[in-house]
Amino acid sequence: MAEPIRIGVVGMGTVGSGVVRVLEQSASHIERQAGRPIVVEHAVVRDLGKSRSVAVAPERLGTDVVAVSDNPAISVAAMLVGGLEPARTMTIDLLRKGKDVVTANKALLAEHGPELFEVAREAGRSIAFEAAVAGGIPIVAAIAECLAANRIESIRGILNGTSNFILTRMEEDGSNYADVLAIAQAEGYAEADPTMDVDGTDATQKLALLAHLAFGVWVPWKQIPRVGLETIDQELLKFADELGYRVRVVADASRADVTLAMRVGPTLVRKGTPLAETRGAFNAVSVVGDAVGPMFFHGLGAGEMPTASAVVADIIDTVVGRAAITFRTTGVLAAENPAPVSGGGSSPYLLRLQVTDQPGVLAELTGVLGREGISIASVIQHQPAGGSATVPLVIMTHSCGAAAIERAVTAVDRQASVQATTTCLPVLDD
Amino acid sequence: MAEPIRIGVVGMGTVGSGVVRVLEQSASHIERQAGRPIVVEHAVVRDLGKSRSVAVAPERLGTDVVAVSDNPAISVAAMLVGGLEPARTMTIDLLRKGKDVVTANKALLAEHGPELFEVAREAGRSIAFEAAVAGGIPIVAAIAECLAANRIESIRGILNGTSNFILTRMEEDGSNYADVLAIAQAEGYAEADPTMDVDGTDATQKLALLAHLAFGVWVPWKQIPRVGLETIDQELLKFADELGYRVRVVADASRADVTLAMRVGPTLVRKGTPLAETRGAFNAVSVVGDAVGPMFFHGLGAGEMPTASAVVADIIDTVVGRAAITFRTTGVLAAENPAPVSGGGSSPYLLRLQVTDQPGVLAELTGVLGREGISIASVIQHQPAGGSATVPLVIMTHSCGAAAIERAVTAVDRQASVQATTTCLPVLDD
Repeated sequence: MAEPIRIGVVGMGTVGSGVVRVLEQSASHIERQAGRPIVVEHAVVRDLGKSRSVAVAPERLGTDVVAVSDNPAISVAAMLVGGLEPARTMTIDLLRKGKDVVTANKALLAEHGPELFEVAREAGRSIAFEAAVAGGIPIVAAIAECLAANRIESIRGILNGTSNFILTRMEEDGSNYADVLAIAQAEGYAEADPTMDVDGTDATQKLALLAHLAFGVWVPWKQIPRVGLETIDQELLKFADELGYRVRVVADASRADVTLAMRVGPTLVRKGTPLAETRGAFNAVSVVGDAVGPMFFHGLGAGEMPTASAVVADIIDTVVGRAAITFRTTGVLAAENPAPVSGGGSSPYLLRLQVTDQPGVLAELTGVLGREGISIASVIQHQPAGGSATVPLVIMTHSCGAAAIERAVTAVDRQASVQATTTCLPVLDD
Repeated sequence: MAEPIRIGVVGMGTVGSGVVRVLEQSASHIERQAGRPIVVEHAVVRDLGKSRSVAVAPERLGTDVVAVSDNPAISVAAMLVGGLEPARTMTIDLLRKGKDVVTANKALLAEHGPELFEVAREAGRSIAFEAAVAGGIPIVAAIAECLAANRIESIRGILNGTSNFILTRMEEDGSNYADVLAIAQAEGYAEADPTMDVDGTDATQKLALLAHLAFGVWVPWKQIPRVGLETIDQELLKFADELGYRVRVVADASRADVTLAMRVGPTLVRKGTPLAETRGAFNAVSVVGDAVGPMFFHGLGAGEMPTASAVVADIIDTVVGRAAITFRTTGVLAAENPAPVSGGGSSPYLLRLQVTDQPGVLAELTGVLGREGISIASVIQHQPAGGSATVPLVIMTHSCGAAAIERAVTAVDRQASVQATTTCLPVLDD
């Protein structure tokens, strides 16, 4: 039998526990795939006293990452601590001390990717991060390896399972956002503090990583226009439904003329299209390559076992030497790609306005839109509920640029007839 | 600049032309991905005089594979000749003379895989075959690399674009099989001789390759139960529609108790599920892994550019060294997997019978089914068209085994009231 590979697991939260569980449960299967056994030599936890769903022998458990980084028997570290610090310092330490790193921490890479990748290159080590983007969906490998012959034209995905769970529930049972969020938290689909999920941060950081793979550029994730779930209510979902759409939080990156058009936020997706049929905690990614055409991937984007599946695949890739090869070519595309980020590309938009119920309002508002060159595809206005002075007015525009619609919405919201901030969502028909 | 990799392209049909086109069009992109330029040193064609959509310099064009296999400057051969011979002999020759092979020929691998893989191992070379299974969908990489931490439980897919194109057209415009086949041939979606596509051979050979990757066994493809498109007519599609299903040619492999349950053939798939929404020339594959759960992939499964995308990705993988690593672990799973193939696993079935229109027939037939332990979920029988003595009777069963339904259908067809061979299709609800 070949000598085992000894790994360190840094962080034993949900993902770390899942990794230990998969390595144990499927030990002989994984040994065949890797050509040698993979054993957890040491696991780093925050609290030694905490009870865990997987057992690690006490002599292999500690609270200091140095027990991994300074252990010459360990060659691979699974870096599964969340957040920026101490994760960044730990990762640099591990790389400099000769460990190949596998990580699921998208915030860390989105924020410090250029630095960490540079440290890894200097140290002759690799960083593998399949689990950081879409959990079990092998989208990192797909873009970095399988579609290598293609110039990627666009990437579009549902990358946050929590917000998708919330939207699907709101759509299916008519509950409001706050109630569904409470259910999501009770069922483990949302964190106690769900901010990063519902404000789009998580999906935006993942999109930044995908853009690095597909277009070779490190886009500072904060430059990507991002809209959270807070504007979505039942009224909006019902108008969308009436028009033949569902609402999904879509992360979108595509080549525009000289820029990369990127955005993350609630988007109308036509019923029956793959993104519209992506429900609950599932993730989905659609990629268009110049040779392969449209490719679509769907699977569980989070959770203990799907994420562990991706981490362990990366560990195997590191052991057999594939990760080192792949890491060498990551980011080589920068030369051929546009750098500056613009807002979303051209698309139709749905506007939901609250207007005073009086003659001439529609004419006035279409005039405001027209001055930005935006024409109208359809309008929905229902009879107001008894005696209400304001009514919702829904306008679907023809395709227009992101900058034009932004200026138009600002102008619309200045009209006396408009009684509340207008909601504006891009629309995807394919 | 790094020394170029020189490759040979053996076979300049649709796929071979696509490979030359992609290598030319995206030369600088591919050079970045591979770390060095990839150039076509020699292309082997059948007919030197034929006009081609891509140009290869006359001095690089020949009709003898020896110009590739005996050329020491060439290290990789794209083996894009179809059929079994001379493809098999050429491939052995290329491997023995030290060339790594990339191929899209599924028939060759399904028939001679064990021999060719053995020759490659002896010669210390690799065979990469992403393009042989689902065109541009990276399902080979997904199973062999990305899901390596998973014990695969099942694979289910639409693997033949031609038959899917025909079924979708029949469903959408109500045409009959022969008319749609003529359209498919006119539009280039079907070969002049479509036998291998419509009788299920092509999908079955692809399923055998997937089973090798996922379960480690070489299943002789002829052992896999296979049903062609010929039993599908408009009446059947309409009954399926009425029950909430579409008909797709599904290739299915899953672990049963001690066997591998495999089958290929027309199958009822519930509307709204990913396979049901796979239309036209698209392919789709759904894989269930024990850690990752259900994964779904969708994309173009054939055609010049999608297939070339997969071939060139394999060429890049071969150049950078990933293919050699992956080839080493291909097939290592044999030890943990069941070998014998049984027919499809348990599922509900739809039976379409032509029966005499007289009292007591339904009771008699349900009795025949009952003797095999098969119970009935629902029945459709419409009023016969004016004065017809036989009527179609559609029975949806509860879940039962493949052997039981086969015996039951044999018994049913022996009844005096049954006027034509009964059509029997498995039903997938998820």
